[in-house]
Amino acid sequence: MTQLPTTTRQIVLASRPTGWPTPEDFRLETVDLPELTDGQVLVRNTAMSVDPYMRGRMNDVKSYVPPFQLDQPLDGGAVGEVIASRGDIPVGTQVLHGLGWREHAVVPADKVSPIDTARVPDSAYLGVLGMPGLTAYAGLMAVADFHEGDAVFVSGAAGAVGSLVGQIARLSGASRVVGSAGSPAKVQRLLDLGFDAAFDYHDGSVTEQLKQAAPDGIDVYFDNVGGDHLEAAIARLNLHGRVAMCGAIAQYNATEPTPAPRNLALAIGKQLTLRGFLVGSYSHLADEFRSRMTDWVAAGLITVDETRREGLDAAPQAFIDLMRGANTGKMVVTL
Amino acid sequence: MTQLPTTTRQIVLASRPTGWPTPEDFRLETVDLPELTDGQVLVRNTAMSVDPYMRGRMNDVKSYVPPFQLDQPLDGGAVGEVIASRGDIPVGTQVLHGLGWREHAVVPADKVSPIDTARVPDSAYLGVLGMPGLTAYAGLMAVADFHEGDAVFVSGAAGAVGSLVGQIARLSGASRVVGSAGSPAKVQRLLDLGFDAAFDYHDGSVTEQLKQAAPDGIDVYFDNVGGDHLEAAIARLNLHGRVAMCGAIAQYNATEPTPAPRNLALAIGKQLTLRGFLVGSYSHLADEFRSRMTDWVAAGLITVDETRREGLDAAPQAFIDLMRGANTGKMVVTL
Repeated sequence: MTQLPTTTRQIVLASRPTGWPTPEDFRLETVDLPELTDGQVLVRNTAMSVDPYMRGRMNDVKSYVPPFQLDQPLDGGAVGEVIASRGDIPVGTQVLHGLGWREHAVVPADKVSPIDTARVPDSAYLGVLGMPGLTAYAGLMAVADFHEGDAVFVSGAAGAVGSLVGQIARLSGASRVVGSAGSPAKVQRLLDLGFDAAFDYHDGSVTEQLKQAAPDGIDVYFDNVGGDHLEAAIARLNLHGRVAMCGAIAQYNATEPTPAPRNLALAIGKQLTLRGFLVGSYSHLADEFRSRMTDWVAAGLITVDETRREGLDAAPQAFIDLMRGANTGKMVVTL
Repeated sequence: MTQLPTTTRQIVLASRPTGWPTPEDFRLETVDLPELTDGQVLVRNTAMSVDPYMRGRMNDVKSYVPPFQLDQPLDGGAVGEVIASRGDIPVGTQVLHGLGWREHAVVPADKVSPIDTARVPDSAYLGVLGMPGLTAYAGLMAVADFHEGDAVFVSGAAGAVGSLVGQIARLSGASRVVGSAGSPAKVQRLLDLGFDAAFDYHDGSVTEQLKQAAPDGIDVYFDNVGGDHLEAAIARLNLHGRVAMCGAIAQYNATEPTPAPRNLALAIGKQLTLRGFLVGSYSHLADEFRSRMTDWVAAGLITVDETRREGLDAAPQAFIDLMRGANTGKMVVTL
């Protein structure tokens, strides 16, 4: 039996960010690993996820997930290999679990899910086949009630969720797929992914650019941004249009309320539906999603986009850069 | 055969209001009545409706109903008696139709609906059994997906629609019914109608007053107002709460954008649904609605609230007063 580690490195929350997070809000620590007890496994993490929703957990407010605690390790999606086991998961199994932000994790065996890395790389389970993928799929199909022939607009379209929303819509018969993003390179990337039109929101009014990009209006808006994007979408939505409200990254780091859609009353005459959602409420779609997505990825119909950073030391900056939009596709930290 | 009238008096749109309408925006005219042609009936109107949605039709903008035309008669819901007929509706029939704002109307026979005035007065077909009633019923039941046990908040609750929303919710097993209105007398009226709590929005922050009135939160918000009421409701809605966006009277006469709900991003974590609607999309519920409502009214379970004005000359001021909230229940002009 190879020597098992007795310590691990982990990232703890050193202080709660006010507005934008900074490196000083994080601290790298080395801590002892406890002995395994019955029902636990030891996982050597190979990759961990940084996600926008983690920003909310850094505030000390009641929300849909409990806040991170000061001086305690952060957590989140991670994949790795079981290297010791006192549960019914054998050593050597590749697994997905919720204790990222550390190199080794002691996890109850019933909180890890074995993953199949034969057809797709392990990190795909943090992105296209994981929570961001299900978010895109459930948000488009169930929340926004997508139907073949719909014109779809997605904001934050170069991100982990947005790039999948556009690709799933295209594969599912959208009449037009439009995305917005934050740089010329991302706009080009969206066109490469098969979006019919894309624009950089820095280039002018979102309302005007969306009008150019979707001259016949839109039926579905997948909102990752909030603020001016939501206002522009409301103006552009056709009768009976639907909005899946997934994120409001424009507001995550704001210390004052951001602009609200001043034209929300248009929702009456247009009979729009705006629906906020959390992916956790759509786990009943997970099997259907994973089956379809695995086929799409294996057939090369969906492009797996990742931005990778290397090493636990790089994780805080990877998260900060994610909030600033430095990534294309899923931001992953390999360990 | 009694002498039939050869002329009628009608109200025309003299000018398009900027902001709040004034008496000068209307003009009373006497015009010749055309001879009936095949398939037409002549109706002596006995009552006509003034409704908030008419304000939108006074603007020259594309909307869900065409705008009123300058120097042309206004129109809207009316009830009356057929006094001449070249269609298959016999003389003497009591009917509901769409050519109000005049004393006599020439209407295609297939555009009038016979009404039963044995159990309810004719004007009820303009209110509790008419468009406002169906708006309340469909908005609560279908749009907001009301379920027994839900706590319901309705704004503009003393109006034609709002007073019915609260009463229908109460009859359908709401755990709590809260209304807001614009005067102490209206608040008292809501309590008399069986609302569990009611407040005057002039008395302070809507958010604070709603918190007092609904300490355990709300599940459904029926929005007749928009603006600060919608923001307050979003703050107070429970997980999976629903908003039926019916009207935004705060904005109808505004010449600048009114405040938008700055907290709309809360809809994500709370997984709220906001849905705008027009009653015209819910005509499939009309039979069910009319049957249930007739029973409720006949059994005295729903109070028919009307504010009446008398004579066509009074119609413009009745409309202006309606926009200012002078009415309790349905504003009706008897002719």
